[in-house]
Amino acid sequence: MYKADLARMSEKIHTFATFGDAGHGGITRYSLSPEAQQARAYFQKRMESIGATIETDDFACMYATIPGSDPDAKRIVMASHCDSVKNGGNYDGILGVIGAMEVLEAVVADGIPHKHPLTAMIWTNEEGSLYPPALLGSGAICNPYLPEAIGKNFKEEDMLASKSVLDKTTTFAEALEASGYKGARENRINPDQYKAMFEIHIEQGPILEEAGLDVGVVSCVLGMFNVRVRFYGQAAHAGTFPMAYRQDALYAASKALIYLHDEIDKLDRPELVYTTGEVSIHPCVHTVIPDYVDFSLDVRHEDPELLAEVLKIVNSLADQEWAKCRCEIAPQWNRDTVYFDKTLVGYVKEAAEELGCKHQYINSGAGHDAQFAAYMLPTTMIFASSEKGLSHCEPEHTSDETCTEAVSVMLNAVLKCDAE
Amino acid sequence: MYKADLARMSEKIHTFATFGDAGHGGITRYSLSPEAQQARAYFQKRMESIGATIETDDFACMYATIPGSDPDAKRIVMASHCDSVKNGGNYDGILGVIGAMEVLEAVVADGIPHKHPLTAMIWTNEEGSLYPPALLGSGAICNPYLPEAIGKNFKEEDMLASKSVLDKTTTFAEALEASGYKGARENRINPDQYKAMFEIHIEQGPILEEAGLDVGVVSCVLGMFNVRVRFYGQAAHAGTFPMAYRQDALYAASKALIYLHDEIDKLDRPELVYTTGEVSIHPCVHTVIPDYVDFSLDVRHEDPELLAEVLKIVNSLADQEWAKCRCEIAPQWNRDTVYFDKTLVGYVKEAAEELGCKHQYINSGAGHDAQFAAYMLPTTMIFASSEKGLSHCEPEHTSDETCTEAVSVMLNAVLKCDAE
Repeated sequence: MYKADLARMSEKIHTFATFGDAGHGGITRYSLSPEAQQARAYFQKRMESIGATIETDDFACMYATIPGSDPDAKRIVMASHCDSVKNGGNYDGILGVIGAMEVLEAVVADGIPHKHPLTAMIWTNEEGSLYPPALLGSGAICNPYLPEAIGKNFKEEDMLASKSVLDKTTTFAEALEASGYKGARENRINPDQYKAMFEIHIEQGPILEEAGLDVGVVSCVLGMFNVRVRFYGQAAHAGTFPMAYRQDALYAASKALIYLHDEIDKLDRPELVYTTGEVSIHPCVHTVIPDYVDFSLDVRHEDPELLAEVLKIVNSLADQEWAKCRCEIAPQWNRDTVYFDKTLVGYVKEAAEELGCKHQYINSGAGHDAQFAAYMLPTTMIFASSEKGLSHCEPEHTSDETCTEAVSVMLNAVLKCDAE
Repeated sequence: MYKADLARMSEKIHTFATFGDAGHGGITRYSLSPEAQQARAYFQKRMESIGATIETDDFACMYATIPGSDPDAKRIVMASHCDSVKNGGNYDGILGVIGAMEVLEAVVADGIPHKHPLTAMIWTNEEGSLYPPALLGSGAICNPYLPEAIGKNFKEEDMLASKSVLDKTTTFAEALEASGYKGARENRINPDQYKAMFEIHIEQGPILEEAGLDVGVVSCVLGMFNVRVRFYGQAAHAGTFPMAYRQDALYAASKALIYLHDEIDKLDRPELVYTTGEVSIHPCVHTVIPDYVDFSLDVRHEDPELLAEVLKIVNSLADQEWAKCRCEIAPQWNRDTVYFDKTLVGYVKEAAEELGCKHQYINSGAGHDAQFAAYMLPTTMIFASSEKGLSHCEPEHTSDETCTEAVSVMLNAVLKCDAE
């Protein structure tokens, strides 16, 4: 078994953590920002120093490739992203880039024989924090391979027209031009030149840690649906309008939210996750009874039948009035569960076993570029355990040792794929 | 009995409705805005045309005064405000100004004998929509007479330093200078020169309409308290964090809000009103479990003991965890019930009876300039019924006839006060 190198891993983890360092343990590194440019330059410098060839495509995705012994073999790519959410952590995304770099560095340093060219790749704008939506780059590049219902939300022209959430003016296309990393469209990852894709990511949840494990062998990205639940009441003065006459949209929404929790929990499926993270309330004045409230509902599970059952509960909200307010359900989007390539998942599992690494099968509740790549070419993912399950926040942490172990698993899985 | 004139009332109501007309039935007329300047100019023009003398004070409050037969008598003032909330209606505030103007116009037109000078007054910035807080002008001018606990929130220097909520830069002091209506400090309403104050206002609630009545004889402004209820949870990814581990601050807040409704409703006091109008939620992203939610709670009733009982229920929220989240109560402000002058209330009641006007005693749940004036000189209010109880919104409406009837009540009550 080959192994990733702890010292090289630590150096990369701690160097990338300086690019966008927000001063209290985490980073803010929006895609194509000056901080992301620093990360890209460091990627390029290290990859060139081991003799890799650098290419970029028209979405500024970066590819560092070392040749294999077979000049006709397709590339095996390892990829993730280097952008972050606002005040994010030092592992989400970048660990997959670091892992890809480490595999190439280990192969070169240890002279590991391999047939296929090996590519370390950076997907552009996975988080979509500055230029929404999330998965913008992979959504556009994999678009011809995506189901219509998903692809329509990631049309190339729409992605290029996405505007900065900060200045509301600059388009993603303008940011691409200004980045200095925009390359040729023909350099895009594609199934003719690429055999398989691997992505390491932190788990972003507490399951592995709770089970005392370091690595997750990811079998799928969970299916989900997202709706907005809306309540229409009547605004009136907080001091003058008797309780008996009120149509309070917030009271209605609170009752419905509790009802949702109660009814969904009766299904007794602990692996089901559902979340209300966003609420808007109008007019949001402390002396006015709210006349409009809406909240988001994000529901995820592998089984489409269970999702349908939950959706039925959600839709039933609109069959009745809540605190004399009308309720309306507005579907936003949904996706089917994306299963990763069984052969690749098997290589990851074998590699973990052979390395004696503490692991289990796991689902991905979060979305990743790999879920879109999976429609285009054989793809899979490897999770490194997250301390306390925290992610998308500055305390996000995974030890250098655990990161290195996950990369060792990927290295050996890639070599199994290479040998096939 | 003397009467207000329907044609003159209609003319004023419909002319003022053009100043800040938002194009769909209501107005936006922030204090000291160009639209408010139009309203002030129209006030001045009409009042000068009947021979009234115009004065302004250093808070740009306007006073139009006609002399009485006794040169040594104090003035009787009728006052309200001409500013509105954003997309407000054509009655809140301005009806009190129109009513004051109409009393002076009726007295002059009909040659009604009176001893005391009569003043129609515009209080500056009652709504505080552009320069917070609400009651800014009366809070500053009546400040020396207010209880310390209230007055500390309306200190003159703080009011002058209040910044525009739109440009976050212009201070209220600068807006006053630019308005052209800033006058002398010695012109401020005061108990040495003023005998009594009357304010007509729309009810802003449905009580009079439901009872089939036109006019309310207001006996007090309800006491109230206002708190923020805060919940501290833990942010995590919506897709990766199992339900059993969550500390969802929004779920916590919803449970607590329902509990509050249940417990307060058990007190079975239908005249009690309590409202949650404002909610803030962090980070408010549909894929993130909220780690912080707070909501406002505004509770109003005449009886301080009942308010104390409700506050006890509210404070008990913090004794327990809600969905594994910590809860904290942050008191914001409170005020005691302000009782209006019994003699003036009696005059209003008599005038309503003598006019054969359908009326009842009523409390004011909303705050008004009159509640601060009441600490300085004998004060009272008269309500005109509100259609459907709607207010602070464009559909706010009271018929010209009902408005005129309320003004007839004020005219005769003022004459009773004059004769005393």
